[in-house]
Amino acid sequence: MPRHPGRFITFEGTEGAGKSTLIGKVRERLEIRGVRPVVTREPGGSPVAEKLRSLILGEAMDPRAELFLYEAARAEHLARTVVPALEGGRWVICDRFTDSTLAYQGMARGLPWNEVRAANRLATRGLSPDLTVFLDVDPGVGLGRSTDPNRFEREGLAFQREVRKGFLKARKEGARRWLTLKPGKATPEALAEAVIKELERRKWLPPARR
Amino acid sequence: MPRHPGRFITFEGTEGAGKSTLIGKVRERLEIRGVRPVVTREPGGSPVAEKLRSLILGEAMDPRAELFLYEAARAEHLARTVVPALEGGRWVICDRFTDSTLAYQGMARGLPWNEVRAANRLATRGLSPDLTVFLDVDPGVGLGRSTDPNRFEREGLAFQREVRKGFLKARKEGARRWLTLKPGKATPEALAEAVIKELERRKWLPPARR
Repeated sequence: MPRHPGRFITFEGTEGAGKSTLIGKVRERLEIRGVRPVVTREPGGSPVAEKLRSLILGEAMDPRAELFLYEAARAEHLARTVVPALEGGRWVICDRFTDSTLAYQGMARGLPWNEVRAANRLATRGLSPDLTVFLDVDPGVGLGRSTDPNRFEREGLAFQREVRKGFLKARKEGARRWLTLKPGKATPEALAEAVIKELERRKWLPPARR
Repeated sequence: MPRHPGRFITFEGTEGAGKSTLIGKVRERLEIRGVRPVVTREPGGSPVAEKLRSLILGEAMDPRAELFLYEAARAEHLARTVVPALEGGRWVICDRFTDSTLAYQGMARGLPWNEVRAANRLATRGLSPDLTVFLDVDPGVGLGRSTDPNRFEREGLAFQREVRKGFLKARKEGARRWLTLKPGKATPEALAEAVIKELERRKWLPPARR
């Protein structure tokens, strides 16, 4: 059970998996059902954290420095945006969260997994998503979609394959909160419908009249 | 024994304790003795870390975000500046290091001490100073010296008293590497002489002909 009255739902995946599009569709459907979620993203989601976002995505740096910048942005984002919303009973939908840190900085950058988990725990004080929607696409397909690649997309396919491995490892450790969707040829509408069905299955939404 | 051929000496103290002046004098004396130390500071000491320095000193933020920004700047500073210098056999003199994080973010900001230690350990991979020179001044006297107060100086006297308590607690946990100097009416020259004598006592410098 969550420690707060709201619901905290994160979306994870490799670059170009289609998270943003899906988040938009899920938001529309939630609003039709009377839930107006706070939609936010990491790194970012608060003024200081957005400044950190440009620094993180723009500059090459030591992998541990990168890890700590993500955690700094996260602590600020949680304090200013996520926790107040959850405590006020709002649902929060977040594009990337701690599992991305495990996948990117832990698996793909090769920092010790347990240290990344420890840093995540320090930044979140143990706050965990109530549900994590993982878009599991072929990293090769995802990378092809980006027209203005960021520092992580430019790392290329081998890096994104490591990132995917990282997500699979993170999922193993907290399987109950994960919903894995394999988009394949499914439309964003069909994927959003799958998310909404999961929310009904968990009784966070009443069953829809269909 | 240090894990590297160089010597790593940090200077700590509350605001206005006189660290910079003392560091300048110690550097002069070391150079006379044939040791050309790398002199650096935290937060800062590398290009990305100096950018983080302006962010940290300029913006109010969540205490955990503040902690992680210090650790990010530290990881970058260690990777680019401190560790390469130490491994190359250079001495490194650093104005503030992990003990400041314990004193400011742990004691004065009230973050759990063990969490701050854990964050320090993650950022440093356990690298500890070989010697920490602590300038133990009355925080009231130190604060009076600043003409352009930063965000921490503006927190005022009660805050600086907590910072001093934090340094005393950190010292208890690693007493062997601490040299405490109580400046009182001592000149910077006399204080620098005390540091040099400690270096001779530890046999890092040969005894001077006096």
